Amino acid sequence: MSTQKQTIKPSTYVGKKLKIIPLSGLEEVGKNCTIFEYGDDIIVVDLGLMFPNEEMPGVDYVVPDITYLKKNKNKIRGLIITHGHMDHTGAIPYFMKELGFPTIFTLPLTAEMIRVRLEEFKLDKKVMIKIIGPDDQLNLGIFNLSFFRVNHNIPDSVGIGIKTPLGIVIHTGDYKFDHTPVDQEPTEFHKIARLGGEGVLALLSDSTNSEQPGFAVSEKKIGENLNSLFDQARGRIIISTFASLLSRQQQIINAAILHGRKVAVSGYSLEKNLEIAIRLRYMNFPKDIFIPIRAIGDYPDHKISVICTGAQGQETSALGRMSKGEHRDVQIKHGDLVVLSSSPIPGNERSVQNLMNSLFRLGAKVVYNKIFGVHASGHAYQEEQKLMIALSRPRYFIPIHGERYMLERQSDTAVSIGVPRENSYVISNGCVLEFIEDTNPAYVKLALANRFTNHKIPVRARVAAKKLPSGYVMVDGLGIGDVGNIVLRDRQLMSQDGMFVIIVTVDNETLDLVGSPDIISRGFVYLREAKDLLQETRKKVRDIVKDHTSVGRIENWSSLKTALRDEIGTYLFQKTERRPMILPVVIEV
Amino acid sequence: MSTQKQTIKPSTYVGKKLKIIPLSGLEEVGKNCTIFEYGDDIIVVDLGLMFPNEEMPGVDYVVPDITYLKKNKNKIRGLIITHGHMDHTGAIPYFMKELGFPTIFTLPLTAEMIRVRLEEFKLDKKVMIKIIGPDDQLNLGIFNLSFFRVNHNIPDSVGIGIKTPLGIVIHTGDYKFDHTPVDQEPTEFHKIARLGGEGVLALLSDSTNSEQPGFAVSEKKIGENLNSLFDQARGRIIISTFASLLSRQQQIINAAILHGRKVAVSGYSLEKNLEIAIRLRYMNFPKDIFIPIRAIGDYPDHKISVICTGAQGQETSALGRMSKGEHRDVQIKHGDLVVLSSSPIPGNERSVQNLMNSLFRLGAKVVYNKIFGVHASGHAYQEEQKLMIALSRPRYFIPIHGERYMLERQSDTAVSIGVPRENSYVISNGCVLEFIEDTNPAYVKLALANRFTNHKIPVRARVAAKKLPSGYVMVDGLGIGDVGNIVLRDRQLMSQDGMFVIIVTVDNETLDLVGSPDIISRGFVYLREAKDLLQETRKKVRDIVKDHTSVGRIENWSSLKTALRDEIGTYLFQKTERRPMILPVVIEV
Repeated sequence: MSTQKQTIKPSTYVGKKLKIIPLSGLEEVGKNCTIFEYGDDIIVVDLGLMFPNEEMPGVDYVVPDITYLKKNKNKIRGLIITHGHMDHTGAIPYFMKELGFPTIFTLPLTAEMIRVRLEEFKLDKKVMIKIIGPDDQLNLGIFNLSFFRVNHNIPDSVGIGIKTPLGIVIHTGDYKFDHTPVDQEPTEFHKIARLGGEGVLALLSDSTNSEQPGFAVSEKKIGENLNSLFDQARGRIIISTFASLLSRQQQIINAAILHGRKVAVSGYSLEKNLEIAIRLRYMNFPKDIFIPIRAIGDYPDHKISVICTGAQGQETSALGRMSKGEHRDVQIKHGDLVVLSSSPIPGNERSVQNLMNSLFRLGAKVVYNKIFGVHASGHAYQEEQKLMIALSRPRYFIPIHGERYMLERQSDTAVSIGVPRENSYVISNGCVLEFIEDTNPAYVKLALANRFTNHKIPVRARVAAKKLPSGYVMVDGLGIGDVGNIVLRDRQLMSQDGMFVIIVTVDNETLDLVGSPDIISRGFVYLREAKDLLQETRKKVRDIVKDHTSVGRIENWSSLKTALRDEIGTYLFQKTERRPMILPVVIEV
Repeated sequence: MSTQKQTIKPSTYVGKKLKIIPLSGLEEVGKNCTIFEYGDDIIVVDLGLMFPNEEMPGVDYVVPDITYLKKNKNKIRGLIITHGHMDHTGAIPYFMKELGFPTIFTLPLTAEMIRVRLEEFKLDKKVMIKIIGPDDQLNLGIFNLSFFRVNHNIPDSVGIGIKTPLGIVIHTGDYKFDHTPVDQEPTEFHKIARLGGEGVLALLSDSTNSEQPGFAVSEKKIGENLNSLFDQARGRIIISTFASLLSRQQQIINAAILHGRKVAVSGYSLEKNLEIAIRLRYMNFPKDIFIPIRAIGDYPDHKISVICTGAQGQETSALGRMSKGEHRDVQIKHGDLVVLSSSPIPGNERSVQNLMNSLFRLGAKVVYNKIFGVHASGHAYQEEQKLMIALSRPRYFIPIHGERYMLERQSDTAVSIGVPRENSYVISNGCVLEFIEDTNPAYVKLALANRFTNHKIPVRARVAAKKLPSGYVMVDGLGIGDVGNIVLRDRQLMSQDGMFVIIVTVDNETLDLVGSPDIISRGFVYLREAKDLLQETRKKVRDIVKDHTSVGRIENWSSLKTALRDEIGTYLFQKTERRPMILPVVIEV
């Protein structure tokens, strides 16, 4: 982060503080959540989840740490959701109760996607979702909110203009500028520009693609490319994409209609999302375009297209099962064209490659984004980021939605077009950015001197010394937050060299060993082929026990356990250069 | 694979078979090894290792399955190594003894790198390494070998022309065409073209970059870019690259010399490789350019450059330790420029991003290949692959070195410039490709009809029905091949939801439970916060034991163990939706 120059002596406190707190989503791609607070009013924008990385084996999801929000739940005036993707909505069901069921404000499609998920958690009756239109104004406590449509790869995506006593704050949500979007709803540039004209205190802007120069590809181009694949294909076409990429699914179905192919859908989340979009009339198709996936055998290959989940290489997804020959209704065969209409999420590259290898081996032709344009990102590239900054003309710039290196890149971009370096805040999850009005003439002068922005209210800004709790909260099965570092570390250790349980039974009168020591080991060596090693280890265990019991009665067995752990650990390492987790158990009988 | 049309009726057997067996390296990037066999003569090209993927937790390396070579070790006339990278040399120490210590033939730098590694295994006295020059000819049994220099990112890289009774076979090794290479040794195009003129039966060609259109970037361009970074930097420059990228290290040191900076080196493998290259005079520097890493504090920041390992984000590497504040001699600070002069190996993206995030947080500026050209691949892009094929004009094409999807891409490239689809063999590890001379007029006609090649010997080709053993052989600590699927599966299972050992002690007279059941669990739940769950589980265990012992004496405890595993498993899943590995132990006293 750039350290802001604070050579001006602050006046005594003048107005209330505006706090902008990116609680989450600044050290990762996912689990987005931002807090705006002024006096006794808090609004929360988005409450998403993240998928775990490989350092969190066994974990299902990661959600934000909402300790601060829980403590201040009576201040929360509303939860505003920018669009229906899980990294913006996914944590809602886990936290509604703890937050005292705040009202959710969002557009119709997003609302319905949230409602359906809440239903799964049996919470839909308890949560109030208020549907807003993009032209609505919303007064939530001191805040006045307006919205502007942006393009993303799901309909009903909006950014937010938040009027505060210290100026307007813009939160972009996830956005790109697509002049030919699939949902026919262009970005409302005029609204952004109008806010920019009124004076924007701060812009919080999506950093996901801040490494990419130029402009994102339009969905229209992807549609054309999909059409050209449909033109050429002679056999079945199987296209995999994210369940949440509704715009892409629309395009695939358009292409199928144009080429007289039926569409079969495979994948639970995909079917669910499509059902919602069709029910709410975000998509309109002839009724007979869809056929059940089990019926694809009833049509000739050139009349079939399949949309399915699994482009990220997930083993249990529809395409994952097809690639392993385990899908009930689709057996991949020579002549099939498989299209991966997505790009690998960082960390999934390996699984996607495995998927492609398997599909090729089964005889399919596989087309993916690296060799032909079958996917467009839903996030702004550098030139679009510049345009967003230039339209809104913010005094302060706060890159959000991305890992640290992505935020740094967008900060560089902002500085390159005129945002002063010291006004660009690359901060971390849970940092509290405070803005206070201060009419000290020096601040007034500073505000007037900044030609880049129309925001002229004299403020001082600072990052508060104290960060809010913002660690990973892991969801594993039914547990939320109960898997911590110790459990994860143990999982990692056992995954490296396995574990080795040594059970010794000791007669509590004579202190003699009863029977032979029991050894249970998994993930260390293949036990059937390591009889000698086990034999030797048992002998060593006996010797260690004898040493420790020869001195007579001992109060507890901890020194024996330590000795077993250390000496057997060393011995096994000498023999194998592996370090299984050693767990000694002493049973007195 | 394209199925070759075999409508011609083969004559009776005419000559001996030539077998080309890509034993390994066709389903991965790494562990390259190819076998050529004719009659009683075998030569082996390369014997590399591969780094494990995330499905092999705890494994150190993966090496080829050499079962076939062991069985035929008396036929082996030599092991030829194309260059000094570990994916071509790394398995040598593990297998020399089992292969009967075949003579190794290779160029000087490669020879020394292999020798130093054999020294670590105390094998250097036992293995004969014959140093060859690129213009040497080598007669190994029936085979006559010649060599041609190629460009790669380590000096002394060669491709091989193998004269066999059925025509010439070319093995490219790892290659690119760089007209301005750092080691000043251009590709010997004329030798490849001469072989092409004589008639090439088959070309085995590097597929690593077969997805990339155009030409690979020249190392010279990278040198220029590094120089421009040195021009701009005011503080320390810390550059991380692969230990084996000798050409890159050369360029970094050149830039340091030009800019009056000292060079400190950190990282064991890097120091070792540099030492060899300098000792053999592959690099020449003023003596005083290097300073010990512990001495960097003695110079002003703008006089310092550091070359280190860790660009892949490896936690224990030099840069990895710097990024965590754990390096003894280098503390990253504001003003440092860190350059990642490499690109992430698939699967390492996550760790590289974590590395960058940490470095940014410490105040460093981080430059990496995605935002500025600081790395060039050592492998041919599509246009270079075309040129290799056009120069050698092979009758048969066999893409090697790469995963299935990469091989498929290069096969498409070969077909696009004239190789008949049915002559391009995309095969798997261990496939035996057989060539037999057959003077049946139909074969003669076929050979003459193929205008793409100068190879006119009538042959028939086929993939033998039987594949050689070619699975993963895993090296874990001292064990080679003893970690198999069972051990790996257990490691994976335990890493997902941990394990849960239930120990019940039973009086073998009364069949009563002695004391309370012991439970040892790791990686499942945090035990201190799960007292109720443990309490309940113990109670359930007692009930299950009572049920099973109430029927009186039983012969073995397997039904009790099964009951414990199933019922406790179900119970824990109900309570947590996690499935730890459950290991019941019954102790009779």
